[in-house]
Amino acid sequence: MAEQRKLPSRQENYSEWYNQVVLRAELADYSPVRGCMVIRPYGYALWENIRDALDRRFKATGHVNAYFPLFIPMSFIEKEKEHVEGFAPELAVVTHGGGKKLEEPLVVRPTSETIIGHMYAKWIKSYRDLPVLINQWANVVRWELRTRLFLRTMEFLWQEGHTAHATAEEAEEEARRMLDVYEDFLQNDAAIPVVKGQKSNIEKFAGALRSYTVEAMMGNTWALQSGTSHNLGQNFAKAFNIRYLDRNNELQYVWTTSWGMSTRVVGAVVMVHGDDQGLRLPPRLAPIQVVVVPIWRKDADKSPVLDAAYNLTRALREAGVRVHLDDREEHTPGFKFNEWELRGVPLRVEIGPRDVENRQVVLARRDIPGKAGKSAVPMDEIVPRVQEMLETIQQSLFDQAKAFMEANTHTVQTYEEFKEVLATRGGFIRVYWAGSDEDEIRIKEETKATIRCYPFDHDGSEGTCFYTGKKTNRVAIFARAY
Amino acid sequence: MAEQRKLPSRQENYSEWYNQVVLRAELADYSPVRGCMVIRPYGYALWENIRDALDRRFKATGHVNAYFPLFIPMSFIEKEKEHVEGFAPELAVVTHGGGKKLEEPLVVRPTSETIIGHMYAKWIKSYRDLPVLINQWANVVRWELRTRLFLRTMEFLWQEGHTAHATAEEAEEEARRMLDVYEDFLQNDAAIPVVKGQKSNIEKFAGALRSYTVEAMMGNTWALQSGTSHNLGQNFAKAFNIRYLDRNNELQYVWTTSWGMSTRVVGAVVMVHGDDQGLRLPPRLAPIQVVVVPIWRKDADKSPVLDAAYNLTRALREAGVRVHLDDREEHTPGFKFNEWELRGVPLRVEIGPRDVENRQVVLARRDIPGKAGKSAVPMDEIVPRVQEMLETIQQSLFDQAKAFMEANTHTVQTYEEFKEVLATRGGFIRVYWAGSDEDEIRIKEETKATIRCYPFDHDGSEGTCFYTGKKTNRVAIFARAY
Repeated sequence: MAEQRKLPSRQENYSEWYNQVVLRAELADYSPVRGCMVIRPYGYALWENIRDALDRRFKATGHVNAYFPLFIPMSFIEKEKEHVEGFAPELAVVTHGGGKKLEEPLVVRPTSETIIGHMYAKWIKSYRDLPVLINQWANVVRWELRTRLFLRTMEFLWQEGHTAHATAEEAEEEARRMLDVYEDFLQNDAAIPVVKGQKSNIEKFAGALRSYTVEAMMGNTWALQSGTSHNLGQNFAKAFNIRYLDRNNELQYVWTTSWGMSTRVVGAVVMVHGDDQGLRLPPRLAPIQVVVVPIWRKDADKSPVLDAAYNLTRALREAGVRVHLDDREEHTPGFKFNEWELRGVPLRVEIGPRDVENRQVVLARRDIPGKAGKSAVPMDEIVPRVQEMLETIQQSLFDQAKAFMEANTHTVQTYEEFKEVLATRGGFIRVYWAGSDEDEIRIKEETKATIRCYPFDHDGSEGTCFYTGKKTNRVAIFARAY
Repeated sequence: MAEQRKLPSRQENYSEWYNQVVLRAELADYSPVRGCMVIRPYGYALWENIRDALDRRFKATGHVNAYFPLFIPMSFIEKEKEHVEGFAPELAVVTHGGGKKLEEPLVVRPTSETIIGHMYAKWIKSYRDLPVLINQWANVVRWELRTRLFLRTMEFLWQEGHTAHATAEEAEEEARRMLDVYEDFLQNDAAIPVVKGQKSNIEKFAGALRSYTVEAMMGNTWALQSGTSHNLGQNFAKAFNIRYLDRNNELQYVWTTSWGMSTRVVGAVVMVHGDDQGLRLPPRLAPIQVVVVPIWRKDADKSPVLDAAYNLTRALREAGVRVHLDDREEHTPGFKFNEWELRGVPLRVEIGPRDVENRQVVLARRDIPGKAGKSAVPMDEIVPRVQEMLETIQQSLFDQAKAFMEANTHTVQTYEEFKEVLATRGGFIRVYWAGSDEDEIRIKEETKATIRCYPFDHDGSEGTCFYTGKKTNRVAIFARAY
């Protein structure tokens, strides 16, 4: 169980704060294999809730799940030119199987466009077979040198959608639709506001025509790419010969998309909502939404307090609330308060002898520290009041995160100002942008900031590029990013 | 979509019947990587239902899910002597990552006792930390030379439970409890009767003290090991130094178990219930429980028939039935009937112009062919009648499978008789058994039959070993097995 040493504050060492929260809240642990992590039960329960919330949305938009092999022949990866350039440096390679050297090495999938493209070429014959709307829940491996729990690990869990369409328009619609699905999930379930937009040429997926992204702002004002959706055009269709007979009986290449969201999102939840006491989990995703802590000193009080605690736990559970009763006797209430705060449980119910007498309990909100977050509630109103308060907390976390993102989004006119703001205040820097790929790379080298996206919300008006001085109607958001 | 060529009959070529059913019902497909399969959406939906039905039971018995790395250092596998002997020939080995040769090769997990044992040694300190009841849903890889879709593939999906306990008794209880969970799932959700028992020394898990199994009988009377549960004693605790301080403050090794069920079970569902027309899926697991087929010829009939079909589809869906409306216009009703029979949908609803007039529909059961399985039902009773009939079909599939298993279970007294029965009738052969490991191996070489288990249902009475002639109170079940 979590230790009670104080966390480092976010101010003093954000990176260490993050690691400590993840480890001590028992979301994950380091593994003996460099760069791989162990997702512990509490972290995995959070991931299950994320997975279910996404899966519901995928199914509601007509997608079905399937499963493709972990291993991909090396020759497949090499078929799409940009794809192999992007992924070759990150591959884990199986060279031996069953005690023998393999004739062709197998790659552990870093992503599955190639093997899925191969199968689609086999399955798709006619316009009647389109669209194909398949998603896969899977583990993938990318050989990363500098890893961080959840944010960047050698192996991670994700979903990857892979769709094939008859027309360019349908593929574009699909790529944008799934970006909206990600936004909807992040905002409504994870309480994370995002900026939606298009990736720059430098940052787009290896093999994509266009990549779209939802970017979220972490508690240190850095950006985290939280989900991406790619319009792959006909690049993979041509590499894998995925063709269909159209209504005029002519062979056409399909248009494909892919889109993914991963266990990274767990890191986003930690960094967007966490405070110096630990996690603050949005109620819709929290494995435990409510913890009940019975409090007594005298032996005579134990039984009535515990009885009342059991009863209200049962009432909440029957109403569909994810509730946990912490009736351990080896720990003090204070210890338990700290522990469940560290683990981010949105709402605590305290019940002592006087509460039992008065037929009431005390609710303590995780998002409002101290007395201000406490309120007494009559015991027979517990279920509706808890449900209502969970909704309030969900909204409050989102509002706080949104206000934070807005307060830390800056517009600048010049590169000098850009560097100044980045060094002193950080955040998202919104600029007019007419630079080249080379300009973008130079800015990254000089400032470590990258283009997170060309935001969709720009109204199209014209301005002056902060870097080149050229007139342009393109706006970019730069930021330091994980 | 499924083709309409006739399937080979089970009688004429069981093995080819199986492959064709799996491929043409679109449960799975071959992949370009030898021995790996692609699980197609229909097969994956079936697996999702299996997974959910198991996961519910695991959680109800106090287990939580977690996720451990795909890669295991080679040195870990070597720590438990029997374990490495059992698994070494089946390993896939990653030797290169990120463009470089690795210092220590990584094994793609064939099972996770070793890496989980390593983590448990880190997490478990005190008796208060026990029991640890963790399950993992994951892919695993075993280098198999002769593979078959679902039954034996190089990569497969499964769950693996790994638990640690303070005492030998608790570990034994856990191993038996999870075997009961598998039996409960197989009998009640998969409609598959099983024989529960203990594995022989030859057949037990590499590294286990005792292995337990649920064995099911396939449609050709062969056995399929459908789930196993292992009491690992202190073998892995000692290999990985998993110790805890007991109440007397003394260091003790924990006792561990592991248990697993895999995508093999999909193969069992195909082989236990399938007939010469294709799949017959048990309603509780069927991705589509009811298919609605509207039937019309005259244009004037189309709209009223389709309206009625939409309405009853909606009513069934709202009642929680997994229903699909097949309103394709490019196929005849006869084509659709064949197709959904091949795909094993338990119940078909036919609705034509005359039915609309009479405010009725026709229900056709997949488990009873032809007219005998058809009945007319008033439209306003559709929901309860369908629900009731799905329950009836579920039970009927189980009863048929149970009767088949019983009819094909034989007892014999001598080895001659054993060989005779095996060659002419097959099935499960129940015998008194006092043979040695060498005897068991010799019988396998001579007859291809193996000991499936020492069944728990034996009453303990004594008899004469069919092979050695010795007196014994041990009973074994021999069979050909997948």
